[in-house]
Amino acid sequence: MKNLRAPRMADIAPFHVMEVQERAFKLEAEGRRIVHMEIGQPDYGAPPQVVEAGIEAMRSRRLGYTSPLGLTELREAISGYYESRMGVRIPPARIAITTGASGAFLLVLGSLVGPDDELLMSDPCYPCSRHITRVFEAKPVSIAVDGSTRYQPTAQHIIDAWEPATRGVLLATPANPTGTTIGQPELRSLAQAVRARDGFLLVDEIYGGLVYDREPSTALELGEDVIVVNSFSKYFNMTGWRLGWLVAPEDLLPEIEKLAQNLYVSPPAPAQFAALAAFLPETLALLEERRLEFQRRRDFLVPALRSLGFSVPVTPEGAFYVYAGCERFAADSAAFTLELLHQAGVAVAPGMDFGNNAAERHVRLAYTRSMSELEEGIERLARFICAGR
Amino acid sequence: MKNLRAPRMADIAPFHVMEVQERAFKLEAEGRRIVHMEIGQPDYGAPPQVVEAGIEAMRSRRLGYTSPLGLTELREAISGYYESRMGVRIPPARIAITTGASGAFLLVLGSLVGPDDELLMSDPCYPCSRHITRVFEAKPVSIAVDGSTRYQPTAQHIIDAWEPATRGVLLATPANPTGTTIGQPELRSLAQAVRARDGFLLVDEIYGGLVYDREPSTALELGEDVIVVNSFSKYFNMTGWRLGWLVAPEDLLPEIEKLAQNLYVSPPAPAQFAALAAFLPETLALLEERRLEFQRRRDFLVPALRSLGFSVPVTPEGAFYVYAGCERFAADSAAFTLELLHQAGVAVAPGMDFGNNAAERHVRLAYTRSMSELEEGIERLARFICAGR
Repeated sequence: MKNLRAPRMADIAPFHVMEVQERAFKLEAEGRRIVHMEIGQPDYGAPPQVVEAGIEAMRSRRLGYTSPLGLTELREAISGYYESRMGVRIPPARIAITTGASGAFLLVLGSLVGPDDELLMSDPCYPCSRHITRVFEAKPVSIAVDGSTRYQPTAQHIIDAWEPATRGVLLATPANPTGTTIGQPELRSLAQAVRARDGFLLVDEIYGGLVYDREPSTALELGEDVIVVNSFSKYFNMTGWRLGWLVAPEDLLPEIEKLAQNLYVSPPAPAQFAALAAFLPETLALLEERRLEFQRRRDFLVPALRSLGFSVPVTPEGAFYVYAGCERFAADSAAFTLELLHQAGVAVAPGMDFGNNAAERHVRLAYTRSMSELEEGIERLARFICAGR
Repeated sequence: MKNLRAPRMADIAPFHVMEVQERAFKLEAEGRRIVHMEIGQPDYGAPPQVVEAGIEAMRSRRLGYTSPLGLTELREAISGYYESRMGVRIPPARIAITTGASGAFLLVLGSLVGPDDELLMSDPCYPCSRHITRVFEAKPVSIAVDGSTRYQPTAQHIIDAWEPATRGVLLATPANPTGTTIGQPELRSLAQAVRARDGFLLVDEIYGGLVYDREPSTALELGEDVIVVNSFSKYFNMTGWRLGWLVAPEDLLPEIEKLAQNLYVSPPAPAQFAALAAFLPETLALLEERRLEFQRRRDFLVPALRSLGFSVPVTPEGAFYVYAGCERFAADSAAFTLELLHQAGVAVAPGMDFGNNAAERHVRLAYTRSMSELEEGIERLARFICAGR
């Protein structure tokens, strides 16, 4: 059976950042000290209330399969969160709990796209969006974006890129890797352009709770036809627990449910019971403190990178990434990433993980480490850059 | 976006048994007592050692993403289990931890089959196998099996059914819904037939630990080209935790790894740390006691069903199901299932969940309830049948 591979596998790339991380671990094992800014994982663990709820569930419950759409109480808690935090009424019947945001993408794209279908998305973007689209034999079509449109597609982009095979548009706000958001007026124009073409609008709000300088909002405000994917990994600091959710038009939920039954039976029960504590007032208060700390880190990191000569044309308003142009220092950001790691002991992600659009001139830095580590990272970058000049 | 559905969704059926269960819950809410024999979930919760390990991990660890292939220690523990329990040496490098056995099927079939490819599997079989194949735009091709070949395909079936588009064969031993196994000599002939055609052999061993009257064995004995899927849900009683594993040829693991990164980042961390305790001698001793209890239930249920007039041509040697012919009582097993539920208060699964091959003449009964409940179920069935004659 050697070389018996599905053709799709040739189009699905591994995360290059994993190789950076592996090399970093190896250097550490050899005694080097490395500043880690490569992985999109909060340095905070799950809030203690969440951990305690998980422990209580393990002690007191059998933890069998739940409904494929998740615990009713958790769907209700998310509905309540939308209402109290963002003033949007979303009935629990439109909400499905998923195995991570990845699981949500599997269910949404699995039920909506197939062979010969095309899905518009920005470049740079989160690589799994492209790859999951390809997994279902549909074609991800990239819209190259840059600082001139805040690294986000505009309605005009959608209008220009739309083809007969286009089925919908995937947006992300705040976006990975750029951290930029889409304002509600722009979102409205984008939704309008998609609706006029009978397509679907899928919005990745995985970093939805992590916005700075503004109140969080959701594309669900725009109408009942919008599909949103969210996660307990980032704002709620529950990465390893593998839990997310989606909101979809109510008539799509039966399709989502049968696909969930078939693709993973139900989301993990320990994480679901733990997540019930994620919406307690004291948990949310703690998460707000953590959000403000991420904001302080951004406020330090972005100007520091600019002063070193990295280009950051748009100040990121959310998530915990800076997508920084390194064109002054290198023509090939993948090679630059390795030099940074080996010579300066700083681990970052190469642009190539996020697409093909000027990827060789960009790196992504995650501010998922303490302020003192970020300061050390900047010092090391400064020394490395000065030595090279 | 109304009615914008991927064509595949028309071919993916929901589990009809879920509707039976929902109706059963409704009847219970109205005060009826129901004997549940419909769902394939052990009545035992995870062993206490596993629960304690999970709690300890939650207390002491941050529980971030693990490697996409899972914790090294867990891969090693599974390798050790194969060696000590089944005398087969499987290097940890061939083992991937997955998000349930469902996750394992996603990774294996996602990397091996695509449009125009065909995969042979028996009918009846576990419905997700068919549906996941369809999700990847490949075609599940059914081999109708019955009691004459112990509800398992033979090498001759494979030879007869093989077409130019055939890429491989999926076997299940013990199988859901029939509980029958494939002996090592038959497995060897099947593997030979597949190898001679340059196909892949994928063996579902989800119920691998749950065999009666014989020692457990694995298709991995047959050679390094065999792919096996297993689960912590059934023998290890960890259904809601969503953890499984796969064993594949070593050169397929890089493909498996990149697909795992993209489809779900990593398997759930709480479950992985908990599962480390699944292979402790005291845990395995407890699981053996539970296995013997399943055997006692089978030894009660199969003759009881036969004496009532159900046909069970092959005594199931594993799993916790009886696939029973109900042709003496009804021409339509789906209607019969509803009558049984409403009139006798016994919930079972209709044959249609497992395929099209004489599905209307079969129901599946799960012996995942206590002996006293099974006895009550049989009494109710007896009264129902006598009343109808």
